[in-house]
Amino acid sequence: MDVRELGEGAFWHHLGMEVVALPEGSYGVRLQVTPQHLQIMGRVHGGVLASVLDSAMALAVHQDLPPGSAAATLNLHVDYLRPVALPAVLVGRGRVLAQSRTVALVEAQVEAEGQGMVARGSAAYRLYPAVPLPARDQGGPA
Amino acid sequence: MDVRELGEGAFWHHLGMEVVALPEGSYGVRLQVTPQHLQIMGRVHGGVLASVLDSAMALAVHQDLPPGSAAATLNLHVDYLRPVALPAVLVGRGRVLAQSRTVALVEAQVEAEGQGMVARGSAAYRLYPAVPLPARDQGGPA
Amino acid sequence: MDVRELGEGAFWHHLGMEVVALPEGSYGVRLQVTPQHLQIMGRVHGGVLASVLDSAMALAVHQDLPPGSAAATLNLHVDYLRPVALPAVLVGRGRVLAQSRTVALVEAQVEAEGQGMVARGSAAYRLYPAVPLPARDQGGPA
Amino acid sequence: MDVRELGEGAFWHHLGMEVVALPEGSYGVRLQVTPQHLQIMGRVHGGVLASVLDSAMALAVHQDLPPGSAAATLNLHVDYLRPVALPAVLVGRGRVLAQSRTVALVEAQVEAEGQGMVARGSAAYRLYPAVPLPARDQGGPA
Repeated sequence: MDVRELGEGAFWHHLGMEVVALPEGSYGVRLQVTPQHLQIMGRVHGGVLASVLDSAMALAVHQDLPPGSAAATLNLHVDYLRPVALPAVLVGRGRVLAQSRTVALVEAQVEAEGQGMVARGSAAYRLYPAVPLPARDQGGPA
Repeated sequence: MDVRELGEGAFWHHLGMEVVALPEGSYGVRLQVTPQHLQIMGRVHGGVLASVLDSAMALAVHQDLPPGSAAATLNLHVDYLRPVALPAVLVGRGRVLAQSRTVALVEAQVEAEGQGMVARGSAAYRLYPAVPLPARDQGGPA
Repeated sequence: MDVRELGEGAFWHHLGMEVVALPEGSYGVRLQVTPQHLQIMGRVHGGVLASVLDSAMALAVHQDLPPGSAAATLNLHVDYLRPVALPAVLVGRGRVLAQSRTVALVEAQVEAEGQGMVARGSAAYRLYPAVPLPARDQGGPA
Repeated sequence: MDVRELGEGAFWHHLGMEVVALPEGSYGVRLQVTPQHLQIMGRVHGGVLASVLDSAMALAVHQDLPPGSAAATLNLHVDYLRPVALPAVLVGRGRVLAQSRTVALVEAQVEAEGQGMVARGSAAYRLYPAVPLPARDQGGPA
């Protein structure tokens, strides 16, 4: 699939995340912070930054997969480097560190424009290669 | 503060998370999964489960803090045990594993009602003890 | 393979780790703490506890695998709950949280006898199913 | 203290880790891999790489602390990028990502000479400022 289709997921829309083309030639995640992203102390909720990191890493993983493949997050680690308040625009970018046929290890960082890196993370993804389909029927093994 | 005030944060409302009293006497997080929580494959986005875990752990941390104290997530680790699809009601519960005056280590799990545990995690929180206030006014410090 | 063979690895011997039968019917890791495990402040080095956790989880993973299979750690998360000093006997026990044909998510804890839990962790493992061998020779798999 | 004193801990000696001056002006960890570091499959045990990462991050944390301060690992996350076999020389280097008076977030990587990065990690450390000394000598603030 075109990796940009990931950005059409409902949760991306609900949170306000968008796929952006990065200067380095790959795709990242952009999020304009709005009041709905804040916790009670007026800072961006940790779950928002985790969402941006997971999404940025998913983009990085899918960029390297053949069409028809899929990936699922096995686990996710997030380091919160500094709190983010309004106004802020976040950009998340991921990078595959290692990959086999069935798993990938990925890292990502989130920068707040003009404020430097605010969070970083890494994750393992399970990969589901595209199933080669026989011409006639769909009986491929999982 | 009353720990239930955490649930009044804007992001809690935006995601649909609520504070619930747990049978064991503490408070947890409840989230009725709706289509807006799904990624493109029709499963709950990893960022949603990370949000529930972070929120459940924040509740557990604040339950043990004196009024006026605050806590901030330093880092967060999430294990995704199985995918969640509609319909589902998620309940997250946290537990403080160790705590000093300045930091707490916490773990949490998320169960989907009728489906068992779907995610678990742990996190470190930095604690900010309550600032002693001048006698006259009690306008809570940031 | 017999899961207890894991304990014959050279690093197990070098660190002093042993496989022990646990009351619950599975196998765990035992380590008698000696001065060689300490860092400069006189506490058990974080790497020792990480080693016990990784080893306990490897035991748990292999207990569920068919003979001839193998597993490799993809990533590891450790929470250090309290410092450990001499004298201490550590026991690590792991538990598989979720498993597919190619990956497993596992957690473990380390108790110091008489002191309760001192560390906990979780990890993802990549699984390598046993290669079906030709009938004649059983030269162990790589 | 002189940060190089960390390398005098008993576990550093037992594992074979040494403090080395890095080209970039800071200190790192060097480990010549020997058979005692291997698990049963002939690869470096995950606990060895975790030890090198924790030690490299401890060096990075202590380099920024005033004399008399101490630090303790709160939690540790390790990503294993590729297996390491004999012969290999490992070099670990850490970097502080964010730091307050009481906690630090740090990351590190391990390279095998001639083979590139084999593992990376991040960790949170609790910091213990130097204890203020009596008025006469060393009026350091807490």
